[in-house]
Amino acid sequence: MGRYRALLAYDGTDFCGYQRQAAGRSVQGEVEAALGRISHQPAVTVLAAGRTDSGVHASGQVIAFDLDWVHGAERLCAAINAHLALDVAVQKVEVAGADFHPRFAAKLRRYEYQIYNAAVRLPRTARSHWNAWPELDVKLMGAGANALLGEHDFATFGTAPEGGGSTVRTVTRAAWSSDGAVLLFEIAADGFLYRMVRSIVGSLCQVGWGAWPVGEIERRLAACDRKLSGSAAPAHGLSLVAVEY
Amino acid sequence: MGRYRALLAYDGTDFCGYQRQAAGRSVQGEVEAALGRISHQPAVTVLAAGRTDSGVHASGQVIAFDLDWVHGAERLCAAINAHLALDVAVQKVEVAGADFHPRFAAKLRRYEYQIYNAAVRLPRTARSHWNAWPELDVKLMGAGANALLGEHDFATFGTAPEGGGSTVRTVTRAAWSSDGAVLLFEIAADGFLYRMVRSIVGSLCQVGWGAWPVGEIERRLAACDRKLSGSAAPAHGLSLVAVEY
Repeated sequence: MGRYRALLAYDGTDFCGYQRQAAGRSVQGEVEAALGRISHQPAVTVLAAGRTDSGVHASGQVIAFDLDWVHGAERLCAAINAHLALDVAVQKVEVAGADFHPRFAAKLRRYEYQIYNAAVRLPRTARSHWNAWPELDVKLMGAGANALLGEHDFATFGTAPEGGGSTVRTVTRAAWSSDGAVLLFEIAADGFLYRMVRSIVGSLCQVGWGAWPVGEIERRLAACDRKLSGSAAPAHGLSLVAVEY
Repeated sequence: MGRYRALLAYDGTDFCGYQRQAAGRSVQGEVEAALGRISHQPAVTVLAAGRTDSGVHASGQVIAFDLDWVHGAERLCAAINAHLALDVAVQKVEVAGADFHPRFAAKLRRYEYQIYNAAVRLPRTARSHWNAWPELDVKLMGAGANALLGEHDFATFGTAPEGGGSTVRTVTRAAWSSDGAVLLFEIAADGFLYRMVRSIVGSLCQVGWGAWPVGEIERRLAACDRKLSGSAAPAHGLSLVAVEY
């Protein structure tokens, strides 16, 4: 029995989220079922770096599990994928230390949020981009995002994953870019609160639409009041793209 | 009653193709149903520039239809989209001449074919890219594609849409590019035979894998023999991106 670490990608559209649930198709449930089928172990538990919400995607989720497997990491990757549906796939498998925990050992997490900023929706972006309108001012949104950099109490933008935990996090990147009607928000931090990226994106859109002056981001952040966040942007624009250790 | 011309985009994954069929969900059927609902006309027939196969996408399909509508083209666009599912959307509506026919009037059609060239599949490309492996040599594929430029009898790579029609077409662009593991093939012609782009992509992949020397494309094209084509690449990598008039 050895511990393995794997990079996992999924299209979150048709999942009830990462975490296994009593009812509904979860990413964790599908991967655990695939591991059960190839190992004949009665129950394999998969640990993950981030428990993404329903509809949220991943290209760089990191998972770990203990498995009886003697055919090498590369063949393990192919074997797992052979038992997974098209919307979830292991990208790489490596041997890990017996105590490697993808959530507790993570030093940095990177998320991206994609917006299709047009009056008319475009079908090929429907699963991966929030179709937001009217036009957003990306420069203003970038200026607003600067207020998030550094160590802050982010209680305005999310709640601690475990009730009562600290809401202080350190954001090391928060930047907008655009390519035609597609806007991309990249954010990196040592950790994220529940709904934090989506609340930040929703708030920055208030700035981009001119509804809030840029300074509102800093002011509302400093207030540490969950009621002062803009509405959370929808889940389907969000993707967990990397976890660093 | 006036004739309208519209730009139509769709994700072809969950359609049985563009053309209306007795059973199955077609793009034409969905758009005609939406027009029926907003106009109260008993039956609206939608004409299209290209009748894409099951699984093939479009970002630049051109359609035309006759409709009783007095609220202007922009509101017509919004009204149609309000009656369409998320995987199909009109991008723009314009008033057209009463005799405008999107198929017969078309001067040039542009298609793109996307390949995700990696050993391990990536979920977010699953609907739009063919996951082909082993590694393809894009330079060789570009050299092979050059043989297609100009006016040729393309009988090796497809059949005439109407039985017995000419298989001569003029290709004005046929070029490969790559961005990491994503390969893109762009092809433009005055018209395309049935299965022509997919047969060409399948044949160029034989070159890219080193199974055929580059010169095989020119030799097989000259033979005008459908049996000499490589296997057609799968439908879901193909997209109709523009029609020019």
